[in-house]
Amino acid sequence: MKTALICPHCGREVEKYRHPFPTVDIIIETPGGVVLIERRNPPYGWALPGGFVDYGESLEEAARREAYEETGLEIELLCQFYTYSQPGRDPRFHTITTVYVARASGEPRGGDDARKAQIFPWDQIPWNELAFDHGKILKDYLEVRRDVERPVKGASLSSKIPRCGR
Amino acid sequence: MKTALICPHCGREVEKYRHPFPTVDIIIETPGGVVLIERRNPPYGWALPGGFVDYGESLEEAARREAYEETGLEIELLCQFYTYSQPGRDPRFHTITTVYVARASGEPRGGDDARKAQIFPWDQIPWNELAFDHGKILKDYLEVRRDVERPVKGASLSSKIPRCGR
Repeated sequence: MKTALICPHCGREVEKYRHPFPTVDIIIETPGGVVLIERRNPPYGWALPGGFVDYGESLEEAARREAYEETGLEIELLCQFYTYSQPGRDPRFHTITTVYVARASGEPRGGDDARKAQIFPWDQIPWNELAFDHGKILKDYLEVRRDVERPVKGASLSSKIPRCGR
Repeated sequence: MKTALICPHCGREVEKYRHPFPTVDIIIETPGGVVLIERRNPPYGWALPGGFVDYGESLEEAARREAYEETGLEIELLCQFYTYSQPGRDPRFHTITTVYVARASGEPRGGDDARKAQIFPWDQIPWNELAFDHGKILKDYLEVRRDVERPVKGASLSSKIPRCGR
């Protein structure tokens, strides 16, 4: 894990990284299942679409931008899910990811950092090939999703998990 | 709002800030109300205890550390609330804050960046003197808290808002 920033002009250490990097990941629900991307760069594997949040960009803007860049889909954000921050969750840097739930229709196509984008039915998630902590995130989501679906038939997802746009 | 990092050795610009800075804020519930701190540095005013997340530190660790440094209270984290990211929410930098709900007992005392720490009954929040977007955060929280308290008498807060420790 890289821990310091080097000056590109004089080659000396400018500072130890002082803060983790904010990222977003998006659980895109489609009629056929969830959209995952196959990563073009290490760590390889399947992952939720997502990426770094730019300075001056809200989490919601970053989620829409990253989803579009990596899957070609224009998503509708439904709600904000948990924010995950364990230092070891990304082997490259310490990143803190805020996860959104969104929906989209249409066929995804890989772009940018995604070699491929594909819809996986919920019972065919490639659990052993998921990068980062995305297996945990998807399990957490399925748990909430089940909780919502079980007791109140027809209840909307957003009755249980926070609204978007905050 | 500062937008670039300068090399302390050669004085040249190393990079535009590329990522927002992650922070935490904590809504500390006590028997007498919520704990607010009076800020020692600009922007002045009352605020939720909180601060920057260190590299290698989880959000939960940062929340416990900042609460202790600014109020002297050892808190029990109850749940993760929303993550707020609007670029203008902090006049100094672009910060993204994840808000936690916690409880504590005892008398808070100001420390570190807090000139003072004080318990405010929920009907005596100094709304017009709150820094950042902490007024919005507290209003969002009161809304959820009311929703929980109204329909299911005695329901615990965490039945509506996400669990901690993710």
